[in-house]
Order: sequence, then structure tokens, then C-alpha cells
Amino acid sequence: MAALRSFVNGDWHVPSEDGAPLHDAVTGEEVARISSAGIDIAGALEYGRARGGPVLGELTFHQRAALLKVLASHLLEHREELYALSARTGATLGDSKFDIDGGIGVLFGYSGKGRREMPNAKVYVDGAVEPLGKGGTFVGQHICTPLRGVAVQINAFNFPVWGPLEKFAPAFLAGVPTLVKPASQTAYLTHRLVELIVESGVLPEGSLQLVCGGVGDLLDHLTDQDLVSFTGSAATGQRLRAHPNVAARSVRFNVEADSLNCSVLGPDAAPGTDEFDLFVKQLVTEMTVKAGQKCTAIRRALVPAGRVDDVVQAASERLSKVVVGNPASPEVRMGALASLEQREEVRRSLKALLAAGTLVHGDPERVEVAGADAERGAFLPPMLVRCDDPDRAEPHEVEAFGPVSTIMPYDSAAHAVELARRGLGSLAGSVVSADADFAREVVLGAASRHGRLLVLNRHNARESTGHGSPLPALVHGGPGRAGGGEEMGGVRGVLHHMQRTAVQADPDTLTAVTGQWVPGSGRSVTDVHPFRKHLEDLRVGDTVMAGPRAVTLEDVEHFAEFTGDTFYAHTDEEAAKANPFFEGRVAHGYLVVSFAAGLFVEPSPGPVLANYGLENLRFLTPTYPGDELTVTLTAKQITPRVNAEHGEVRWDADVTNQVGESVAKYDVLTLVAKRPEEKA
Amino acid sequence: MAALRSFVNGDWHVPSEDGAPLHDAVTGEEVARISSAGIDIAGALEYGRARGGPVLGELTFHQRAALLKVLASHLLEHREELYALSARTGATLGDSKFDIDGGIGVLFGYSGKGRREMPNAKVYVDGAVEPLGKGGTFVGQHICTPLRGVAVQINAFNFPVWGPLEKFAPAFLAGVPTLVKPASQTAYLTHRLVELIVESGVLPEGSLQLVCGGVGDLLDHLTDQDLVSFTGSAATGQRLRAHPNVAARSVRFNVEADSLNCSVLGPDAAPGTDEFDLFVKQLVTEMTVKAGQKCTAIRRALVPAGRVDDVVQAASERLSKVVVGNPASPEVRMGALASLEQREEVRRSLKALLAAGTLVHGDPERVEVAGADAERGAFLPPMLVRCDDPDRAEPHEVEAFGPVSTIMPYDSAAHAVELARRGLGSLAGSVVSADADFAREVVLGAASRHGRLLVLNRHNARESTGHGSPLPALVHGGPGRAGGGEEMGGVRGVLHHMQRTAVQADPDTLTAVTGQWVPGSGRSVTDVHPFRKHLEDLRVGDTVMAGPRAVTLEDVEHFAEFTGDTFYAHTDEEAAKANPFFEGRVAHGYLVVSFAAGLFVEPSPGPVLANYGLENLRFLTPTYPGDELTVTLTAKQITPRVNAEHGEVRWDADVTNQVGESVAKYDVLTLVAKRPEEKA
Repeated sequence: MAALRSFVNGDWHVPSEDGAPLHDAVTGEEVARISSAGIDIAGALEYGRARGGPVLGELTFHQRAALLKVLASHLLEHREELYALSARTGATLGDSKFDIDGGIGVLFGYSGKGRREMPNAKVYVDGAVEPLGKGGTFVGQHICTPLRGVAVQINAFNFPVWGPLEKFAPAFLAGVPTLVKPASQTAYLTHRLVELIVESGVLPEGSLQLVCGGVGDLLDHLTDQDLVSFTGSAATGQRLRAHPNVAARSVRFNVEADSLNCSVLGPDAAPGTDEFDLFVKQLVTEMTVKAGQKCTAIRRALVPAGRVDDVVQAASERLSKVVVGNPASPEVRMGALASLEQREEVRRSLKALLAAGTLVHGDPERVEVAGADAERGAFLPPMLVRCDDPDRAEPHEVEAFGPVSTIMPYDSAAHAVELARRGLGSLAGSVVSADADFAREVVLGAASRHGRLLVLNRHNARESTGHGSPLPALVHGGPGRAGGGEEMGGVRGVLHHMQRTAVQADPDTLTAVTGQWVPGSGRSVTDVHPFRKHLEDLRVGDTVMAGPRAVTLEDVEHFAEFTGDTFYAHTDEEAAKANPFFEGRVAHGYLVVSFAAGLFVEPSPGPVLANYGLENLRFLTPTYPGDELTVTLTAKQITPRVNAEHGEVRWDADVTNQVGESVAKYDVLTLVAKRPEEKA
Repeated sequence: MAALRSFVNGDWHVPSEDGAPLHDAVTGEEVARISSAGIDIAGALEYGRARGGPVLGELTFHQRAALLKVLASHLLEHREELYALSARTGATLGDSKFDIDGGIGVLFGYSGKGRREMPNAKVYVDGAVEPLGKGGTFVGQHICTPLRGVAVQINAFNFPVWGPLEKFAPAFLAGVPTLVKPASQTAYLTHRLVELIVESGVLPEGSLQLVCGGVGDLLDHLTDQDLVSFTGSAATGQRLRAHPNVAARSVRFNVEADSLNCSVLGPDAAPGTDEFDLFVKQLVTEMTVKAGQKCTAIRRALVPAGRVDDVVQAASERLSKVVVGNPASPEVRMGALASLEQREEVRRSLKALLAAGTLVHGDPERVEVAGADAERGAFLPPMLVRCDDPDRAEPHEVEAFGPVSTIMPYDSAAHAVELARRGLGSLAGSVVSADADFAREVVLGAASRHGRLLVLNRHNARESTGHGSPLPALVHGGPGRAGGGEEMGGVRGVLHHMQRTAVQADPDTLTAVTGQWVPGSGRSVTDVHPFRKHLEDLRVGDTVMAGPRAVTLEDVEHFAEFTGDTFYAHTDEEAAKANPFFEGRVAHGYLVVSFAAGLFVEPSPGPVLANYGLENLRFLTPTYPGDELTVTLTAKQITPRVNAEHGEVRWDADVTNQVGESVAKYDVLTLVAKRPEEKA
């Protein structure tokens, strides 16, 4: 059996020794061998920094996002092949989809987030401009730039495809190259994934490396610019995080570890309600998907004190129907654990749990297996523990990483919160209830010990993605026992791979640094109206100034009549005077911005195609009849769209009156065409 | 001499032993004694969690912000007393203001940020609602809730007032109680600060504790809900961070440690330019303020290769005029170091630096001292090192924590970036240049190894707060050697003390959890127009629906003529058709929102006082002549103002056409009066 190759330094590397065997979880057959012998780990890190980083740094966020989409599509075409290999890890087709389609979904998700929520630029501007002096000559703003290191993934065995991809996508979007180290047990699937990626030719050189086998002295070679994302046991995570070089260089070390996730059944959810059924169904799903080998699976089912029997009975009924066996058999609902060692580990943990409870479903030593040899495969039945004393420590401390959950009673919402918190930090929790007040109390009470909380009920069940599914738009990770880390969460996960830096400067220099026009910076007023410039010709700072236009009492009265906006402040002098903010009748804010548009518009057809929105509009000074308005419109941010004939331009609008006071400030959002000859 | 008391468990605690002596930095006299003997540290932590946290949890962000302002004003009244005590730490009046006024400024700063940028609520909503299903029944959003623990500060000796306050303010605003552990050398000043705070009676019980002296086994008693903010040496920071209990519970551990900050003189800044003078002046300031005992001080001055002589000469001239001595003497510009031990430490570090350079100003063994005994006080002169080989390791690695800087040459912007990065992670850096391109190159090149970067030049010098001043609105902290931490940064520093949790639910439940109306949630339409409700009577979800109103071609033509907005898409059928987004002439977006206002407005005087802005306006579907518009306006967020007669109400506006498509969506921002009898 050939050893898995690693992909380092831009090439495939065959290990210099045979390596250790990896076994099919179902048949026990050898699938592959694994070893990293002969790999220059320090060299791989340096290659990522010296080659991958700079190449990625040449791309904008949008260009990287576009590549993620191409990559996702490529993998989508090859997923059948991955499914087949995934079955050897013990996964059913459903499990494989969870892992493989889920991972591809993260690529698509980040591609969309990158295009929609990040600029088409290389620098990410974080937050508003902070005025630092009254004169406006000194301002601050935060920028995020990519760390000039490598994002090292140390992955767990349970999600050989989703694991690498959910970490890779935000790192890539940030502009940071990745080095993947899969867990040995299922490394052959990650290996094939990386082969597919490399074969696609989509990724820039150096942006992804793979080390199959041990990483040796990798931690010794990390710098402050590298990151580690670790998924696995808390003990290992702690040990690695405390490594002297990691500590000395303050290496960002994200840990996703053990988690004793809970699911709380609401008091409203009596047997016969939708929520009761949803709770039981979800519990069984979480116990059986991936044979319970999910960091987010429900380990603790908290139910109202009087409902324990009902839940045990309903869950047992459902569990009885779960066919365990060879995932290749169509009737099989739950496959094997990843290895015989995992099965032993689960049996040991179950034994510890049973010190505090009784087994009400399943037997760790007996399992009926369909289509496979129960002796050779790592099979276990789903097992439900009942613990009538929820104050016992075991159910809140012992994580049996397999198809095992413990049912416990609670007395009140406050008690449910207290029990939920006894997980001491969890990745995910859920409340199954249609009672919004109960849900609110549990969510707010348990939140500071949870990374994600799901409220499931009849209203959202059809669309709910379920307790156990991390989503790219939401953070994944939890405090305390769960490792204190945070991944994904949309752009948050990208920024995790970047350094936030506060920049202080005069507005012009800040504009030069961020590439976005900062108020107070110079404006460029030329003979050509900026609305006549195509996207490529426009520069931040290009400005049109127009006006003045007087606002008459007749204008205000007419606007009130025409629009129907007869608010007293516009129509009744005495009443307006009584308003604490006005000295008399004022013009409508909508009139001010409409007149401003009338001033800055360039009427004939040209590159500006549409005004698709406004942002941050503030009316700063009332406009009284007789006031004269001038508008200054300045190109603030230019966002060409990859694969489109246009882009977006954000304009800074400042409407001032005859004494120079700002009457209204806002951003005008427009679509602007690219030059005709350059349309894609 | 009496020992400093600690403030724990709601009371002042006198140590059960004499304690170690603390000495006046100037005279060597004993100032106080310090010991934490007899303090129950575990009990103090538990008191903070059990008492301080819940009491703070009863307050909203705005209420906490208001208390910070009252506290700041109280301290402002007592600052003379703090100045006097500060002089005993060796600080000049200028140094004392930097520390004390700076600390009070952080309280004011956070009070403002809390009121302006956080809701008047107990839950902080982080980011937008994420749609998680096409049907809109399942959505996600991130909330931040306070950690239910204690924010432990382990402070450095150099900022006995600013240090505790800059960490306290964001923790308090978050709702997390604080335990301050000052560095022994200058603990008597922090002690007096806490006495003043306690005497003020402003803070809720349990929100601030003080432990003077060692903290014993404190780290053993931390939970996942506690945080530690450490400022001090990197070695100590690493050791504490690797403590088994800290690692096992993933305690949030923020470190601000050594930092070899650089300042880069631009190639444009020849002698005779403003920038040359600014560079030299800033360098001397950073060397002498607090006798150079600032984590942000300039340790490495990088100047164009040909300008080293000029800078050395100009800096030496300025340094010659720095009078060192008793800070009580008015002519003194630089006081003593904090202790004789610190002086020895600086001499040792200087010796290490001199392996790579020559001392061109100052003598560590000889200093002229005004108004004090040079033998008894911890005096040193400012000392400038010249290192002509910037590739030497020492200037980039050895931090002499006193009035010491090293001048080095660089060849090009890229070389300056490379040298700046050799600090391996710094708190602050600066570029002194009026060349925006040079500044941009250095800032973007050095950013991923810096927490803050200042560009200083003639345009902002008057308002610049300088290289060495952290500001509450900007992040303070840096990667790598600087500790990998981040403090302040406005709301970011508050969120550091909170747990971010992704909540997934149906819109109604999410509304119940966040207290903000989520699109898709139920709306409450009653006979009373919501604009007729005072702030206290209004509920999120209160809705007015109005319309339909037809938009005619005449309306569009008239609006174009009236406003002057004669953009072709509104006036020329053929040209509009040629636009890729329109099928023919379209109504102005401004017309749509004006008509919408005409529909939802309640004309007569009432609680709604003004529309002060719009946010997130998007035109989603073109409106063609003949279309009929309906508007639905729903109260989304209600923000009563503390100490004001009104508050802010954010309304969700959804303008739809006759087939139910959304034409425009936006938030309307209004000021709404409180009930007259309840006005403050």
C-alpha cells in the first residue's frame, strides 16, 4: 500500500519511509499508509511565507473571492469521488454530504461574503474615521492587512473535508497561505481533496500545502506572523498552545476542543406538540450523524422534570429504527466510528458517564450490523443515558465522542440556564421551544458560555439547519472548555488572519493609505463632471460642486402638498417654533436631498447608470426658507466588479448652507459603467 | 509607615503583616509599605462574580456610560492631589498629566463611545441579521453578552493611574467587574486613585476591587469567564499565560509587553523642513517623557542613510537642554526613573546595546541633577546610541526601558519597512514625512507588525497627539513581541470583555432575544398611529402601514422639473430603455422616499420631534409610472436617552409596489419625546 504524499514547496513529496497503516473503518482493511518522513517542515513554512503570501498579496479580496467560487465549482464536480472515499471513514452518504458538501458550501459562502462585504482592494478598512482633533487635520482609522505568515491547520479526524475547507476559505480570502495537517485516521480523504485542488490549477502557487503525517518540530519554526487553528482534544490544544515558541512569539492559536453541548426542551413542548417531536428528532439526528463524532453534537439533553420518561420513550423508539452498518448499504442510517481506537475510547467514556446514570438505550458491547462484519468495523449502537440527578459532575464533564447522549431533568428556566452553563464553555446549544420568553431567558442566560445557540420551533423547523451545523456566516467556536476560539462568522473569520492597525494621520495621507477618500482630504474639481468618467478613469477625490440654490417658502409648501408630507414643522410656523429643535418652519430633509441631487446630477446618458442607495444620511442643521444650498459630491470609494461591466462608486455628499454649515451629509451609492472596450 | 490597604469584598483590608517598603524615586525616602497578607484572593474573585457582575448587569450600556462620566468629573476635581503623589514616582508635572489626565480622558472617552455607539440596552447586537433560509423563517445574528467573571488587571509600574483606568473603563462599560493589581513600585498612587473612586460612591458595589501586593494563587482560581489584562515584561506575560489553569480554561489573557517601537524619518524630510524638526522634537519627547519609561516610546530611530549626522546633531542639541532632576523643581524637564532597580536595569540594557553602537549623547554614570540628590534618586540622563549597521541584532532586540534610543540608517522605503518589521511586533510606530506615497508604503509594509502607526507631518503636527499616546478610540497593543494583545479601540475594547454568540432562530424569537425588531417578525398595527406614542409607550414592532399611492408620469416629470434632477432615466423614455437596469422611464428614488414620507407621516404636533437621518437605503426595484406604492414603517430600535427629554427611534421602512415587491428599504431615524411628566 502506497504512502500518502504531501504537497509542500510547490510539489508532491513521497515520504522517505513506509509509514503507518490507516484502516478502513468498516472493513478494517488497510486504505493507505502515512508518514511525513523527509519533509522539511521549516522549509514548507518559509515557502508559504516567501512565495504564497506575496502571490496572494497581489490579489484583491474580490479576486480571491472569485477564485474560491471557481474552486468550489470544481470540487462540486468531483464530489462523488470524495463520497466514495468518505464511506471508508465509516460515513454514510448523508454524513459524507455533511462533510463534503458542507465544506464546498463554506467556499461558496466565503466567496459571496468576500464580494458583498469586503472591498475590491488589498486593505480592509475597519470601522469609521475617528476625529482626533477639533480642526480636522488629525484623524484615525483602523486598517487590516494580511499577516505575513502561514495559517497552519491541525485538524481533527471527523471532518476530513469540511475541516480543512472551513479554515482555508477565510485564510485565503485574507491573503494568507495555508498549511493543512490532517488527522492521520482519515488523512486519505483530505489527501484526495488536496489532489483535486492542486489538479484544478485554480489556486496561486504556494497558497495551499499539505503535510500528511506528523509535523515534527513545526511549532519551533512559527513566527508572530503565523497562525495555528487547532481542532481536537482540549489536552492537546493546551499543550500546543503552551509551547515555548508559540508563547514567546504570541502566535495566534485558535483552539476548537471538547464541548458538552446541551439541548433544552421548553416547558411548552409537551408530548404531542411540534416542538416535542422536533426535540426528539434533533436529538436522535445529533446522536447518529457521523456516529455522533461531531464536536457540536448534543451530549446533554435537558428536559422539564416531569418529561424525562416521555423523552426517553420517544427517543428510544426513534433510535430503535436506526440501522447501523456498512454505509454502502442503502438502508444504513449510521455508519462506523472512525477507528477501533475511537470505539474503545467511547466505551471508556460511557463507563464514566454510567457512574451517574443508567443506560436506557443501546449496549456498547452489542450491536446489530447491516452489511458489514461487526468485529472488524468500528461499530457501536446509539446509546442514551438517563441521569436523574443533574447535579452530578459526570454528564457535564465527560464527553463520549460517539453516538452517546445523556438526558437530565431541570426544574425552571433558571435551572436550565445553570445546567447549560455547567458545560463550562460549549460550541453550540439549542432551545426547542415556541415560547419566546423562555427562549430569551435561556439564550441570554447561557450565551456567555456558548459560541452558538439555536432556537428551534414550529416556525423555523422547515428552514432550520439544525443544532449541529456550523455555518460560514456565523461564528464557530466557544469559550472555556470549547477552546476559547472563534472561526468563520463571515468577515470576522477573515480578519482573524489579518492584523488590525490603528493609523493616525492627516486626511490626505490616510486617504493614500486606505485608498478610500477621507473627509477633509483634497478634492479634485476639473472641467469634466465626474459622472462623465468611466469607472477606470474615476479617482477617489474627484469632485463636483454645485449650487447655490435658494429654498423658498413656496418650495417647502409645494413639496408638502406634492408629497403629502405635511408634518407641522414644514407647514405651521407657530407649531414649528414650539418644537425644541426648530426656530420656525423648516424644509423637509427629503426636499434638501432632492434639491441636492438636482444640483449635482449630470442629465445626459453617461457612465453613471443608477443611484442604488444612500447611506449614513444625517440632517445636521435645519434648512429654513431663504437658505441657499450648495452640494459637494466627492468620489469616496471605487469598487470595480470582477466579471461585470460596471462597478460601484460611493460618493461623499455634503450639503451646506449660505454660511457654510453642513445641512446634510451622506453617502450616495451609484453603479458606474466600465469603459466600453474593457467590458468583460 | 503604614501599609497600603486593599479594597476587596466590599471593604478596605489592612494587611496582616508590615510589608515591603516602597521608596520615593527622587529622595529614596520610604513612601509606604505593601503587602497582600491575609487577603482571600479566591474570595475576592468570587465576590466580584457574585456581587459586582449581577449589579452591573442590571444597568444598560448608557447607564454605565453615564457613571463613567460622573466618575471622570470626580477624579478631575481631585487631580492636584494625584499630581503631588505622582511626583514621588519621579514624574514631572507633564508626566503626571500624561498619566492622570490621560486616564481620566479614557473614562470620558468611553463614556462618549458608550452613549454614541452602543445601544441603551444590556445586549450588544454585533453585525447584521444573516438570512439562513430562503423563506425568511430562519435567521441568525450575533449578540455580545458580558462575561460572568472578573477582569483582572496586572499592571506595570509606569502608568499607575492611566493603566488601571484604561482597562477599567471598557470592562465596566461591558458590565464586567474589575480587580486591579498595581505594580508594587508605584502602587501608592493607584491606591489613592482607588480611594478617591471608592469615596466618590459613584460605582455600584463590587465593580472595582484593589489588591496591593502579590496576588498569590489568583491564577489558580480563574474560570473561563474571567479575563486577565497583563502589562509588563514579555517573559512574565508568557509565564502567566502558560499557567495550567489559564490554559485549561482558555482564560482570555491580554498581554501588552516589550516593544521596540520605531520612528522613520522620510527621505523628503531634509534638515530645514518642518518634518525634520518634528522628527527630532518627537524623538526627544519620547526619550524624556516619563524618563523614557513608556511601552510606546521610540527605541529605534530610522533615518535616511545620509542624514544620520544631521539627526544626531540636532537631537543632541535638544537633549542638551533637557534639565534632569527633582520633578518638583519648575525648570526640570525629566524626572527620575521609578526606582534604583530600574536605573540598574537600564544601565545593563544600554551596555548590551553599545555592543552594536556608540553612545553619542549622555553618560549612564554621570548626570547633572537639579534640586535633588543624584545618589539617592533614580536619575539618568537621556542617552542616544548611534548604530551604523542596522543589520545588527541588538537595536532590534534590546529594550532599554528608560531615556534611551538608537539611531540607525536605512537605504530605501523597502529597507525602512524591513527594519521596522525587525521589531517582531510593536505597539506603535511613526513615519515623519509629508510624502504620502512614502508614508503609504511604510505604513502598509509595516502594518502587520504594528498595533498603531502614526504619520506625522506639517499638516497634522498642531493637532497630533504624538507617537507615544494611546487613545481610547484606537486600539492599543501589538502582535508578537508586543504581546499579541489589543486594548481600547473604542467599542472593540468593550467587546473584548463580552462573549460573542451566534443566535439562530425565527425572526420573532430573535426580536425577543435582541430587543431589536428583526425583519420578518410580527408587526403590531393599532388604531393609534405610532408617531402619537411617547417613547415609553412605543414598542418595537409598532407599525403604521399606509398607501397605496400611484406614481404618475406627471409626478416624475414634475419632480424632475421641480428639483432639477433631470437625469435621463427619469425624462427620456428611449435613453432610459437603453440603460441596462431599466425598462423605460423610472421614478426618482428621492421621489419614492418623499412620497413614502407623505404616506406615513402624522402631520400634527406629537411626540415625534424630527427625522434626523436615514440609513441603509437601497432601491431594490425600479418604480415605473403607474406603479402604486405602499409603505410599512415599523419601530425597530428604541433608545431612550439618559438625562434627556427624548430618545431615538429607528424605524424599518419598506416601500412596496402593487405586486408586493420591495421598491426601497431603509431605516428612518427619529427623535421622539418622552412623556411630559417623565421628562428629566
